[in-house]
Amino acid sequence: MSNRAAVMTQLEEIVVEDRPEPEPGPHEAVVRVEAVGVCGSDTAYYKVGRIGDYVVDGPIILGHEVAGQVVKVGPDVTNVAVGDRVAVEPGTPCRNCRECMAGRYHLCPDLVFLATPPYDGALIEKMTIDARNLYPIPDEMTYEEGALLEPLSVGIWGCKRAGLEAGDDVLVTGAGPVGLLAAAAARALGAGSVTVTDPAEFRLELARGMGFRTERSDSPGGDGFDVLLECSGAPGVLGQAMARLRPAGRAAMIGMSKEQAIGLPLSQLNVNELTLSLVNRYNHTWPLAIELVASGRIDVAPLVTHHFPLSKSADALTLASRVTDSVKAVIHPQI
Amino acid sequence: MSNRAAVMTQLEEIVVEDRPEPEPGPHEAVVRVEAVGVCGSDTAYYKVGRIGDYVVDGPIILGHEVAGQVVKVGPDVTNVAVGDRVAVEPGTPCRNCRECMAGRYHLCPDLVFLATPPYDGALIEKMTIDARNLYPIPDEMTYEEGALLEPLSVGIWGCKRAGLEAGDDVLVTGAGPVGLLAAAAARALGAGSVTVTDPAEFRLELARGMGFRTERSDSPGGDGFDVLLECSGAPGVLGQAMARLRPAGRAAMIGMSKEQAIGLPLSQLNVNELTLSLVNRYNHTWPLAIELVASGRIDVAPLVTHHFPLSKSADALTLASRVTDSVKAVIHPQI
Amino acid sequence: MSNRAAVMTQLEEIVVEDRPEPEPGPHEAVVRVEAVGVCGSDTAYYKVGRIGDYVVDGPIILGHEVAGQVVKVGPDVTNVAVGDRVAVEPGTPCRNCRECMAGRYHLCPDLVFLATPPYDGALIEKMTIDARNLYPIPDEMTYEEGALLEPLSVGIWGCKRAGLEAGDDVLVTGAGPVGLLAAAAARALGAGSVTVTDPAEFRLELARGMGFRTERSDSPGGDGFDVLLECSGAPGVLGQAMARLRPAGRAAMIGMSKEQAIGLPLSQLNVNELTLSLVNRYNHTWPLAIELVASGRIDVAPLVTHHFPLSKSADALTLASRVTDSVKAVIHPQI
Amino acid sequence: MSNRAAVMTQLEEIVVEDRPEPEPGPHEAVVRVEAVGVCGSDTAYYKVGRIGDYVVDGPIILGHEVAGQVVKVGPDVTNVAVGDRVAVEPGTPCRNCRECMAGRYHLCPDLVFLATPPYDGALIEKMTIDARNLYPIPDEMTYEEGALLEPLSVGIWGCKRAGLEAGDDVLVTGAGPVGLLAAAAARALGAGSVTVTDPAEFRLELARGMGFRTERSDSPGGDGFDVLLECSGAPGVLGQAMARLRPAGRAAMIGMSKEQAIGLPLSQLNVNELTLSLVNRYNHTWPLAIELVASGRIDVAPLVTHHFPLSKSADALTLASRVTDSVKAVIHPQI
Repeated sequence: MSNRAAVMTQLEEIVVEDRPEPEPGPHEAVVRVEAVGVCGSDTAYYKVGRIGDYVVDGPIILGHEVAGQVVKVGPDVTNVAVGDRVAVEPGTPCRNCRECMAGRYHLCPDLVFLATPPYDGALIEKMTIDARNLYPIPDEMTYEEGALLEPLSVGIWGCKRAGLEAGDDVLVTGAGPVGLLAAAAARALGAGSVTVTDPAEFRLELARGMGFRTERSDSPGGDGFDVLLECSGAPGVLGQAMARLRPAGRAAMIGMSKEQAIGLPLSQLNVNELTLSLVNRYNHTWPLAIELVASGRIDVAPLVTHHFPLSKSADALTLASRVTDSVKAVIHPQI
Repeated sequence: MSNRAAVMTQLEEIVVEDRPEPEPGPHEAVVRVEAVGVCGSDTAYYKVGRIGDYVVDGPIILGHEVAGQVVKVGPDVTNVAVGDRVAVEPGTPCRNCRECMAGRYHLCPDLVFLATPPYDGALIEKMTIDARNLYPIPDEMTYEEGALLEPLSVGIWGCKRAGLEAGDDVLVTGAGPVGLLAAAAARALGAGSVTVTDPAEFRLELARGMGFRTERSDSPGGDGFDVLLECSGAPGVLGQAMARLRPAGRAAMIGMSKEQAIGLPLSQLNVNELTLSLVNRYNHTWPLAIELVASGRIDVAPLVTHHFPLSKSADALTLASRVTDSVKAVIHPQI
Repeated sequence: MSNRAAVMTQLEEIVVEDRPEPEPGPHEAVVRVEAVGVCGSDTAYYKVGRIGDYVVDGPIILGHEVAGQVVKVGPDVTNVAVGDRVAVEPGTPCRNCRECMAGRYHLCPDLVFLATPPYDGALIEKMTIDARNLYPIPDEMTYEEGALLEPLSVGIWGCKRAGLEAGDDVLVTGAGPVGLLAAAAARALGAGSVTVTDPAEFRLELARGMGFRTERSDSPGGDGFDVLLECSGAPGVLGQAMARLRPAGRAAMIGMSKEQAIGLPLSQLNVNELTLSLVNRYNHTWPLAIELVASGRIDVAPLVTHHFPLSKSADALTLASRVTDSVKAVIHPQI
Repeated sequence: MSNRAAVMTQLEEIVVEDRPEPEPGPHEAVVRVEAVGVCGSDTAYYKVGRIGDYVVDGPIILGHEVAGQVVKVGPDVTNVAVGDRVAVEPGTPCRNCRECMAGRYHLCPDLVFLATPPYDGALIEKMTIDARNLYPIPDEMTYEEGALLEPLSVGIWGCKRAGLEAGDDVLVTGAGPVGLLAAAAARALGAGSVTVTDPAEFRLELARGMGFRTERSDSPGGDGFDVLLECSGAPGVLGQAMARLRPAGRAAMIGMSKEQAIGLPLSQLNVNELTLSLVNRYNHTWPLAIELVASGRIDVAPLVTHHFPLSKSADALTLASRVTDSVKAVIHPQI
């Protein structure tokens, strides 16, 4: 019985190693990993070795967008059973601190998060995780769709952080996986119109196919948005896009900024009394994400443009830069 | 040039009369009325002559679910033009009082509301109304759909009053027009699951066709709802349904209660710290309602089960009691 | 070394018994109890033996408004130390369930609450409790004031549940301890005017001394309140007082109703689109309660009208019915 | 009968001129101006001639912190009468646009605001204004206190924009008039602790006298704040102070930034999922401001350090830069 893992041993190097057969703790389950989406943060760790204060300083297994099947459970597990097909919420909170008790477990200072140094992720055949992070998915939902509930969760939470109200006209800057799923979440949560911008025509085409209005980033249209979901992380976009918001407009910064410090032209933005909300992952979004996909209100499948076996994880991790023909790569650890 | 109106001259009597050609004031428009949905309140005025403190004490024209075409505008009108196909928001606020200035124009004590005594409604070929109450609808939207934006607005506002959050599991009691549209609104605003109850199998069938879970009122299922939208107005339903809410559950009383005073079993409900919100119509819901129907997120058409010409308005007003085969009657004043 | 406790052995009977010396668990502390306020619920258990579904079916120690001194701590305790003077939050949540993780630990179905059957309370010389329920109080604060942070917490939470906004004109019905502290909380949280009603002149006098406007319950004044804090529990008061709210008014039901089912005259209340929030204790209010009392923004001392040694607990428990000269009785277990 | 006005004729020049006796329109009142506080914006117009897009391009009367007595009313005025002592809200909205109807009249694009080009302000003996901007003040309140309700309103609204919750620990950066009044508002709205920072010892002394904790800006203390009220407008302060907020902390940018664009170190702030709200004046704050001052919950009097007659308006306008011994100058147009 093997348990192969794709281990990042140094910058831009992945080695497939065999790891011990996992055993669950009392509250844990062992999940046979079937699909792992590749996220920009995986690529950043792979290429740069760090994101902000999180630094890779030893071998690490990447991957935190995960779905699979439960193959073993600890004695205290009650919410899932062996055989369940599940989506995985990658962060495990302490359940005891100020943040956890305030309903903000995602801001728990002791959060253990898959593929965030020093914790390993999901590019492995079988992994253990707190069973309370597992959410059964319906039979009709594929494992790939299950894995994409994670970036969809980012989009849902971005909408909540932005204070999205039903009827709001929404501008989404950036049509990568997070931008497209944030746009889908906005519409599913009752947005009025949803407009997506990106420099890449391939991605705008996909956005149109999903039913959104689109704009080339280099020829922005008019004003008149209530909510901005910034998902590009590109320099200057936040300030420019906020200037297109109506009075009392709200912006959520979802994309990880590539700048040291964002610059906001306050004298302009002040008059409209805007609000900017920073975003750190998500809180209690899996049940809704499952419901939205299962009921057909959101279709995540079109985002998956490429598939890889575990042994080709390195290729998957570098695909994201090909914005002209890719959106989301999925790795299948059982293959 | 005629301007026929269906006038309620006394209880259970409608007479078609010709009225003068209307002239718009500076801020007004004349609308050629194409579709008028019949509401339970119309029926109540027709049969009982009163709703609470609103008493019919003279001839009145009923009808407040309205769509039509603009045929004339006053000199100060800027938001619509002659030829526009429009949906009509039936309440005209004073724009000056405490409530109006607080963003709650629907609670304006001087609100002029179509077909609410002493004000006439829309069962007439041509009527004048403040043009700011008119919202252009797209070419693909029928006038009937335009008229149904009014009960849809009730559903949308009920969701807002209930504090509906994306992901909430919603229970809707009552599958009449308002209940079905409240259910549709809840789903379009990001509800998790939506369950509809009613005693009438015909209406439950319609609810299932719209994609909702259903329950016979006399064999209620389990607990576990976050939000209750009470749309039946039937005695005892509110309290029984609130008992099925989870901790921190929220209920909105949308249906007009048929009881003098509702009885709420507090000792039970208190432990779960529930919230009950009363609902009085809607506030700024037309743009969203149009967007939801135009984008296909809500389909209002299946609710229209019967059509009537103006001369058969009396038949339309009494149809609503036939719960075994009807949901919504629409009157066409041009026919 | 004694550990005397006032044990309710049957209806209307208190026996002082010696209990074993308490030992703290890993997360627990032993508190030497210095002051215990008597609450209406203590009196209800003493006289009637039940409140709703909570039934006294064996010997029980009453008392849950508590302050004292830490005399021993378990090995894992970090937030308090031996010698600390502390106020006690009486409810211990499981920290693991859906409600706890949503930030609503007070609705935890497994909440262990002092003096709520089957759990013992604080009328004892020394008791153990989860140390995370303990909040150090400043030297200048008396133990009696510390004990009164519990009913003050009820008032604070009632304001939060009512959605109190700064500037709201507030009506408080009932000038018992909870009503007076709810009024004080409302003012400290930025209420505009605060008006208190009660049938008892003694209590209205106290209310005036605390700076509130007052009204005899039998000669109510005019309308024009934004928020109602119902603290009387008397039949009919909720509905009558809600009728005095302005449009969009909000009511919180803080007092435990003495009726099986409250009756609400909806046809009247509906027009103003009111909101009614039920209230079940409090959530994370101690730090604020301490700060409000320590900074002098709220003075709880005037409420304490009577003191009793542990041996006179029975007298304390029956005092509350004397509304003509008492408000709050405090029992001192060390005496 | 004179009507002297202090007119700014060019940069750094004030000339006292006689203006025509004012006549009120139907909804207007004439106010005999008794006290005008000098604001930083007055000083900016006086010295620089512009604030952002607002440019002084002709003679202008400054002053928008105003109290006085009603001496004449138009025929449609109902809320005030001749002889009333009143505080003046300086902005007059259109009452008709999208923002006005949404309850955000302060963001009305057609807002007419005293002393904001091209509109004149209040440094005049008698002025006309929409009577709905006038709020009677009690006899015990001085006109100076009445004038200071305007900067107090800024502080109150800043707290609301920050989403201040009762119990929040608040950091106020900048101890000028707005900072001190924002601090006072925060405490009156139920803040836990309130800490004020400033480089000037004179102002910190005043802050301590008002009961706040203080810090020298150049030796900041530790972290642990829930809310930041940025009132200094000084470069870099916003970002540094936001870094001291707890997870889920909220910041309001009240001070007008002196920078073209603020720089925010996102990679740090993101983790804590902070929210930044921009602030543009206030909305419906006068009734609360009056109540807070009248009830003694806020004492604005200590802020008034200097008084000037109308003829010395130029001296008053330049006083503000003397941070070592001044906070707020008041001009008395009747003197």
